[in-house]
Amino acid sequence: MKLSSQTLGAHAGRLLDAVRTARPLVQNITNYVSMDIAANALLALGASPAMIHAPEESSEFTARADALVVNVGTLSAQAARSMEHAATTARLHGTPWLLDPVAAGVLTFRDDVIQRLLRHRPAIVRGNASEIIAVARAAGLTENAAVPRGVDSAHGADEAAALAEKLARHCFCTVVATGATDVVTDGTTLVRISNGAAVMPRVTALGCSMSSVMGAYLAVAPTPFDAALAATALYGVAGELAAAQAKGPGSFRVAFIDMLDAIQPADILKTLRVTS
Amino acid sequence: MKLSSQTLGAHAGRLLDAVRTARPLVQNITNYVSMDIAANALLALGASPAMIHAPEESSEFTARADALVVNVGTLSAQAARSMEHAATTARLHGTPWLLDPVAAGVLTFRDDVIQRLLRHRPAIVRGNASEIIAVARAAGLTENAAVPRGVDSAHGADEAAALAEKLARHCFCTVVATGATDVVTDGTTLVRISNGAAVMPRVTALGCSMSSVMGAYLAVAPTPFDAALAATALYGVAGELAAAQAKGPGSFRVAFIDMLDAIQPADILKTLRVTS
Amino acid sequence: MKLSSQTLGAHAGRLLDAVRTARPLVQNITNYVSMDIAANALLALGASPAMIHAPEESSEFTARADALVVNVGTLSAQAARSMEHAATTARLHGTPWLLDPVAAGVLTFRDDVIQRLLRHRPAIVRGNASEIIAVARAAGLTENAAVPRGVDSAHGADEAAALAEKLARHCFCTVVATGATDVVTDGTTLVRISNGAAVMPRVTALGCSMSSVMGAYLAVAPTPFDAALAATALYGVAGELAAAQAKGPGSFRVAFIDMLDAIQPADILKTLRVTS
Repeated sequence: MKLSSQTLGAHAGRLLDAVRTARPLVQNITNYVSMDIAANALLALGASPAMIHAPEESSEFTARADALVVNVGTLSAQAARSMEHAATTARLHGTPWLLDPVAAGVLTFRDDVIQRLLRHRPAIVRGNASEIIAVARAAGLTENAAVPRGVDSAHGADEAAALAEKLARHCFCTVVATGATDVVTDGTTLVRISNGAAVMPRVTALGCSMSSVMGAYLAVAPTPFDAALAATALYGVAGELAAAQAKGPGSFRVAFIDMLDAIQPADILKTLRVTS
Repeated sequence: MKLSSQTLGAHAGRLLDAVRTARPLVQNITNYVSMDIAANALLALGASPAMIHAPEESSEFTARADALVVNVGTLSAQAARSMEHAATTARLHGTPWLLDPVAAGVLTFRDDVIQRLLRHRPAIVRGNASEIIAVARAAGLTENAAVPRGVDSAHGADEAAALAEKLARHCFCTVVATGATDVVTDGTTLVRISNGAAVMPRVTALGCSMSSVMGAYLAVAPTPFDAALAATALYGVAGELAAAQAKGPGSFRVAFIDMLDAIQPADILKTLRVTS
Repeated sequence: MKLSSQTLGAHAGRLLDAVRTARPLVQNITNYVSMDIAANALLALGASPAMIHAPEESSEFTARADALVVNVGTLSAQAARSMEHAATTARLHGTPWLLDPVAAGVLTFRDDVIQRLLRHRPAIVRGNASEIIAVARAAGLTENAAVPRGVDSAHGADEAAALAEKLARHCFCTVVATGATDVVTDGTTLVRISNGAAVMPRVTALGCSMSSVMGAYLAVAPTPFDAALAATALYGVAGELAAAQAKGPGSFRVAFIDMLDAIQPADILKTLRVTS
């Protein structure tokens, strides 16, 4: 199946409207760096974020949330416990959930947690290229991948494409590897989106906030693959339009939040570049 | 007693000057989402914030703070311990303190913590309408209130007005229910303020930062009711003026922090709308 | 040895280029208030931040980081454990590390932690004047210093100069005391830099983010003293240039992050004011 910019742009626009109408309640168990920008991105878009993250409360909240986003950025043993409780509850209730494996491949403890979380069947795994490669490697899908050093990606998303497909089939989920080109795949179809702006990796936790926004789309889209495509399209286009108004990473962040509020389906349709 | 916009505006202006002169030291045991905006709001206003929140340190700091703000947004068992230590110390030392019951009514654990904290006699309870209704319900003051789903309010402040009065009398405190119209009451007098802007609930933790700023006013005002009125007036007017300069929720947040620095008593006097 | 604005400006410019070329991986075990601005400052500058802070992961990461920054702003027993593990590992691996003793002198628990951390030989100790005075006092280097109340400095950096020198000799490290005038000393040479802007202490965690950026310089500079001078020069000049474009503390923060991205060696050379 081949998706055109036109088809995908129209679909992403309809799902943008759907998010704004439904105002889904998105639970985020996320890192401390991203909490502010993730909550602001969801609110600007028109969704309802909740950062309920402690083991004492996480799974009780998941039972009523429309979607769950789990991000291991500033992991700890206690956070891991919360994440497992919430993921278990999400699976029991059929609540779609997304895993953002920040810094996968870098540290033993988090690689163990990520592999345990994968067993709870996330609907989407979203990371930068290095993270997706590392998750695939830890799942035994390759032995040749280089180990990343830090949080920033050392690979292009194209390098991650084949492993993203393998990982999607292995986990029965949709996989998104973001970068200058974003790769979205459900293991059968693979789409490349090449919007965005060079300033985007210079703003902390922007990828994390994209995962949170993708959670909002999970709550309204017919499939996780649709949610992943629509949210990736939104971020690429909003980022491109915001960058045109910004002088640097500080003003970009402000313009980007404004853009999530202002962006319309027609903007996505006009600007989206599907390159697969 | 009936308060005019004129009387209240003049009073709020005098207390704004008093905060800037006294630079009160405000301890915040608050959620991780709001730490940045709460500290920046207090600094922009001219107060001195301190985010001392661990059980190992919280109550020792309370003994020297001018006011304490407790916000249960990202609660955990450890945070609850800190909050109880600090609230106990505040009461012993006569330090005025404010409780922000984020997401009250949504989760068992936090509802228990909120009711325990209420026994330590906060001077002010400030929340959105749904939170105030939920706190009143948990305190046994009504049985008819709908249970909220998430963090965002599902009620207008007007719906909370009667319960806010009951709660104020029950707790011997001032209660503030914020929304498109803000309601402030000490159980005897009830004031409605209708400034603000539609963009305000689209910025995360703005209400939390209002609680922190109200803490600064608690340190200088003759009564908690005066503090609550003056801080509510400040937030409504500053929000309205900042929104006039903003393009969306991202630029609003920037303009709002600038406005807390720039705003003058005359701005409050000119713009305040008391509607009760 | 006497350093001119010209000599130091040229040196700071070369190290700015070195940071941008090397993109050092800087681990931050820092407070929750500063995580966002510290990561954004490092990214805007061109370095690679990682906020790996839990005891389960901190020291494993330190073994591969180019520099480590430890900031006790929102301390807890668990955070203290992480910091000691990481500092021990940094020393074993010869990774340079910086200690930011936020609110030193205010609380018993953190003063103990700060003195324990000092034994792990930080390359730089950076704080505001009150913090440097308090650390020197706790180390037994003076008995006459006033005890600060909160997080904001109650002293000018000039008042801290003599104790900063003593502390540098006592700890075999470089000490930076920031304020309207910044003091940088390795115990032998003392340099005063008088750039910056009045708005800077009105933005939360700006000093914390300066510590994180100084960590990036530690990874590329020939000595900690060079790193401290160059990062102090950068922050003073970038702050001064950003303030000229800002209307208040909100827009200053945005302009400052933009400036860390845009600033060039020539800007530092032209604007730096060494006053010792």
